[in-house]
Amino acid sequence: MTTIGISVGIVVGSDSDLPVMGKTGEVLDTYGIGWEIGVMSAHRSSELVREYALAAADRGLRVLVAGAGAAAALPGVLASMTTLPVIGVPLAATPLAGFDSLLSIVQMPPGIPVATVAVGDMGARNAGHLAAEIIGLSNEAVAAAVVRERARMRDKAQPPEGFVVGGIAPAGS
Amino acid sequence: MTTIGISVGIVVGSDSDLPVMGKTGEVLDTYGIGWEIGVMSAHRSSELVREYALAAADRGLRVLVAGAGAAAALPGVLASMTTLPVIGVPLAATPLAGFDSLLSIVQMPPGIPVATVAVGDMGARNAGHLAAEIIGLSNEAVAAAVVRERARMRDKAQPPEGFVVGGIAPAGS
Amino acid sequence: MTTIGISVGIVVGSDSDLPVMGKTGEVLDTYGIGWEIGVMSAHRSSELVREYALAAADRGLRVLVAGAGAAAALPGVLASMTTLPVIGVPLAATPLAGFDSLLSIVQMPPGIPVATVAVGDMGARNAGHLAAEIIGLSNEAVAAAVVRERARMRDKAQPPEGFVVGGIAPAGS
Amino acid sequence: MTTIGISVGIVVGSDSDLPVMGKTGEVLDTYGIGWEIGVMSAHRSSELVREYALAAADRGLRVLVAGAGAAAALPGVLASMTTLPVIGVPLAATPLAGFDSLLSIVQMPPGIPVATVAVGDMGARNAGHLAAEIIGLSNEAVAAAVVRERARMRDKAQPPEGFVVGGIAPAGS
Amino acid sequence: MTTIGISVGIVVGSDSDLPVMGKTGEVLDTYGIGWEIGVMSAHRSSELVREYALAAADRGLRVLVAGAGAAAALPGVLASMTTLPVIGVPLAATPLAGFDSLLSIVQMPPGIPVATVAVGDMGARNAGHLAAEIIGLSNEAVAAAVVRERARMRDKAQPPEGFVVGGIAPAGS
Amino acid sequence: MTTIGISVGIVVGSDSDLPVMGKTGEVLDTYGIGWEIGVMSAHRSSELVREYALAAADRGLRVLVAGAGAAAALPGVLASMTTLPVIGVPLAATPLAGFDSLLSIVQMPPGIPVATVAVGDMGARNAGHLAAEIIGLSNEAVAAAVVRERARMRDKAQPPEGFVVGGIAPAGS
Amino acid sequence: MTTIGISVGIVVGSDSDLPVMGKTGEVLDTYGIGWEIGVMSAHRSSELVREYALAAADRGLRVLVAGAGAAAALPGVLASMTTLPVIGVPLAATPLAGFDSLLSIVQMPPGIPVATVAVGDMGARNAGHLAAEIIGLSNEAVAAAVVRERARMRDKAQPPEGFVVGGIAPAGS
Amino acid sequence: MTTIGISVGIVVGSDSDLPVMGKTGEVLDTYGIGWEIGVMSAHRSSELVREYALAAADRGLRVLVAGAGAAAALPGVLASMTTLPVIGVPLAATPLAGFDSLLSIVQMPPGIPVATVAVGDMGARNAGHLAAEIIGLSNEAVAAAVVRERARMRDKAQPPEGFVVGGIAPAGS
Repeated sequence: MTTIGISVGIVVGSDSDLPVMGKTGEVLDTYGIGWEIGVMSAHRSSELVREYALAAADRGLRVLVAGAGAAAALPGVLASMTTLPVIGVPLAATPLAGFDSLLSIVQMPPGIPVATVAVGDMGARNAGHLAAEIIGLSNEAVAAAVVRERARMRDKAQPPEGFVVGGIAPAGS
Repeated sequence: MTTIGISVGIVVGSDSDLPVMGKTGEVLDTYGIGWEIGVMSAHRSSELVREYALAAADRGLRVLVAGAGAAAALPGVLASMTTLPVIGVPLAATPLAGFDSLLSIVQMPPGIPVATVAVGDMGARNAGHLAAEIIGLSNEAVAAAVVRERARMRDKAQPPEGFVVGGIAPAGS
Repeated sequence: MTTIGISVGIVVGSDSDLPVMGKTGEVLDTYGIGWEIGVMSAHRSSELVREYALAAADRGLRVLVAGAGAAAALPGVLASMTTLPVIGVPLAATPLAGFDSLLSIVQMPPGIPVATVAVGDMGARNAGHLAAEIIGLSNEAVAAAVVRERARMRDKAQPPEGFVVGGIAPAGS
Repeated sequence: MTTIGISVGIVVGSDSDLPVMGKTGEVLDTYGIGWEIGVMSAHRSSELVREYALAAADRGLRVLVAGAGAAAALPGVLASMTTLPVIGVPLAATPLAGFDSLLSIVQMPPGIPVATVAVGDMGARNAGHLAAEIIGLSNEAVAAAVVRERARMRDKAQPPEGFVVGGIAPAGS
Repeated sequence: MTTIGISVGIVVGSDSDLPVMGKTGEVLDTYGIGWEIGVMSAHRSSELVREYALAAADRGLRVLVAGAGAAAALPGVLASMTTLPVIGVPLAATPLAGFDSLLSIVQMPPGIPVATVAVGDMGARNAGHLAAEIIGLSNEAVAAAVVRERARMRDKAQPPEGFVVGGIAPAGS
Repeated sequence: MTTIGISVGIVVGSDSDLPVMGKTGEVLDTYGIGWEIGVMSAHRSSELVREYALAAADRGLRVLVAGAGAAAALPGVLASMTTLPVIGVPLAATPLAGFDSLLSIVQMPPGIPVATVAVGDMGARNAGHLAAEIIGLSNEAVAAAVVRERARMRDKAQPPEGFVVGGIAPAGS
Repeated sequence: MTTIGISVGIVVGSDSDLPVMGKTGEVLDTYGIGWEIGVMSAHRSSELVREYALAAADRGLRVLVAGAGAAAALPGVLASMTTLPVIGVPLAATPLAGFDSLLSIVQMPPGIPVATVAVGDMGARNAGHLAAEIIGLSNEAVAAAVVRERARMRDKAQPPEGFVVGGIAPAGS
Repeated sequence: MTTIGISVGIVVGSDSDLPVMGKTGEVLDTYGIGWEIGVMSAHRSSELVREYALAAADRGLRVLVAGAGAAAALPGVLASMTTLPVIGVPLAATPLAGFDSLLSIVQMPPGIPVATVAVGDMGARNAGHLAAEIIGLSNEAVAAAVVRERARMRDKAQPPEGFVVGGIAPAGS
């Protein structure tokens, strides 16, 4: 169903973050949005981050997604070097359980926003959904896929069997 | 012993919350209060939530109990669409250990209260106890069951063997 | 408009908590529910608390509301001595900003629930709204007042002037 | 310089949030993006919220921004009723200093993302910058304004006077 | 070596707290202080707590130790009913990891102090050491045991082998 | 009424802590317990701390009270150099509002306990009450004063006027 | 007394941070260490930060100090671009009271350390003391000044008047 | 490659901290810096700590590293007894997950700084990197090793395979 080229660049701070951030890619697949994923550290490979961010728009990317744990500077550094929207996913990689990465990502100073989503798995998935909403604003196929996916979630959320009743006869029956 | 019809509607945000919130039902059973349980998400199936909340009082429900994790909007959304008392149970479903769901549920703005209980298992059970207290205000059988259950807890809390003594002879003996 | 006798007992841990908890009373006035308010400390006047809790139901009270700061044991102690529903209001009375009273009130062990509302002012008001919902289950006049108050809030929340537009002509106009 | 119609709908949970969220509008003005602002509560005027969210895309809005304090359900509820990107701004409106609204907004479950920015003023401004980045993906005038604004920030961030020296002669001079 | 009768009453909020609070007893054994341990809940068996606290001094107890998790009211309630020193041990019994019990125990209002020690195991042991220090003020045998135990800890803390050296020859050698 | 010599040494980490910790002294005055207060920093004047702690018992002191903010090492360092009971008072001296000093004082490792009380004013007062309880174990005059003070608190906590009634006639009247 | 050239570069994230970070300079003055101070944002002027960091060692700087609030990336970004030691000072610039900047600075990933000091004023001063200790390792004049300053602090911490006595005669007198 | 004698003293608060703090030693090995490691508790063996700290500089040590959990006084106490730079590593040794040790170490009062690094493993490694940067200021071999190590990290951070592409052809190809 993939209908558009690589539009989302997913960047993670370290190898160990790849499994969770791969879920962003899985979600993008359901929208038919091409993506790429790679490892680069805001602190250990800042040159690489810089080159990637500066070239992103010209390479056709529309949204960047960055997942990082601890003092998670990666999303903000990317955001400071591109005018593409950057989505930040805080990962729970230390004993502080993600409070550190959440505050490091969401509390960006005025002028350089990062669109922050939930800590961990939940956020990795939502980064994909959010990217699709953004890209859908200017791509009809993606917009249609977003509407379709919402309907699918709604249907899935309404199981035919309905409520299970404890004890006696159902209320109102 | 069930003496009254389905009076409590238990709603959970996702399938994975069913086991813990089933404990609310187990507690209600001890009071002879009929109940029903179902899954509906404040965000993914808001229509369903709305219909359920609007119809709840007419269907004979007296109290709603909503268990949810993360940004737990479900209890508050239900509360905004019914004038029945709504009990909220914060679940520990993310790396943030329930601090997120607790604050999302308890910090409701004026006019739309949610009666919040403890995070997780403890809260799921207490939702059942609290619902029984509320229903007991207008149902004598339930009121009597509440008094009986309290006495039972008190008895159970006073083991016949009493204190175990370390070292030598008991104080005062 | 007061239509029913004193049905809610508001208890505060110290004199300094009276102003904020008086707001529970103001809200109850809008529902025509009679109330009383008094100071008693779970720790410094435990006998008084005990007597008050044990007599509450027989005196015709239907709901107790307890506001307390710091290690806020008052709501839980009251709850352990009555089978009336007890609503707890955490107050921000120490440098820890209400995190202490919130956790002291909401994390009640199974069997003795406290219906916890928001920290401070917001919670004091919502204690009144929640008490009205509970009493409304068995009092038609109060039930009607709750429905009326909800409608009033809704109306007030929809200012006739609608949205203010920044810049140029409104969207869709 | 305003070049495009009303494209951003700013929604706040209560009147008292208007001043801080007005800063989102001020930032949008610098990008020539039309906007509207209004008050509606996820809990007290849920019908209004629903109507607004469902009509938003057809009215030509491209991005919604929601600022709310306490148990801040507004951004998530809006997000659940539209496929437009929704930006959430946590406000510090209670003694818990914004930890409550931050966790209520950012920890959204999979499928319904909210692009969360910083607590308070900083976040209100960044909501405007983020909306401009998103709109700029499909509007060249806005894209150019975003690039221009970034350059202006960079220039402003490099004061001609440079470093002030304490004590003696500058290093390297 | 036990030289004095039962002088410390250890009370826990629930059966599941016995193993960790048994460590208080083990420490008391090293000082030759007799002790007793029992389960009673501030909320579920308040009568029992009251009787125990009121009789404690006359039964010859000198210090009470109370371990409890969640909204840990037990230490404070005991303290309000005796003028014996009460030591509180916060236990990590909920998803909130002991932050709840710590704040519930330490933030006692003026007039009714609880001597709070660390969360969990560490605190259970230190409750025993603190009780010994207090009892040692009026019992020479215990005072001597406290001094002896300190010396033992100091000796144990200075392993004869000293520092392990990484790489080459020790500094200063 | 002072009946016993200087028995409590109050130590504060810096001059700015004197006003709040003076309240410990005021409370001790009500029990007739002599006290002394001085400034010494665990970090900046460790020699002084050491000398003071080592000499304390021989000088006739029975209890040490240490109030400190930030990384509050003072109580623990004193405790490591004396076998007298040490009471620690966490002070709210930094932007972190006392969470820093609380955790620095209460989380002592096994073997060197600090009896921790509440953050700030409340704790400063309770340090005096706790010291009196401890000294009362071996001093009848102080023991009697503790009992007297408790009764006084209880009386003060039961205002003759009782409950104020909102709306209509008192419940039960 | 200034004896060495500009050896410490103090960098702040925004103009509003200059007053507090100026205290680092004041402390350096007491050690006779030359310093410079300037504003540059990790996010808004990353080029400037990069140039400054890359040139720092060649310009003769020995230590960098960076103070920043919110998602405080500045210290880490500087650290990633120089092998000079970087000291980070978390500032309390948002409603989250410095918890955000503290976690953003201290939780650096392996390989790129930032030497973090306390939040706010306290930390700004300690950055100066720490820089002096580091520079003192290879500069005898500074090393002597550090020893001198420590002695001065110690003397200042031992006021000649000693302890103030409440009540009666001093203990041991 | 070890080129210099024992220059870093690593001190841990208890035996159980040795494995994690051994990683500081492993990192120092990569820089050719000799080190020693030993166990001593700020509270249980304060004499030993004092002797070690006072002798450290004369024994040729250049930097001290202290790892400790809970109320982690060790780094600060060492820092107060030496003018060598002291690096503190907060360990997650209690249910409070390292928030306790972090705040106990980083919030040092003015005059006695501790260079704090991240909680746990990450911090243990970074203590080694930071020590190398500090020692490198006055040792050319170490300075060269630091530069070399940085380059190695950068190379390792740029895997030849680059980005993995999900779906179709890479962007820009």
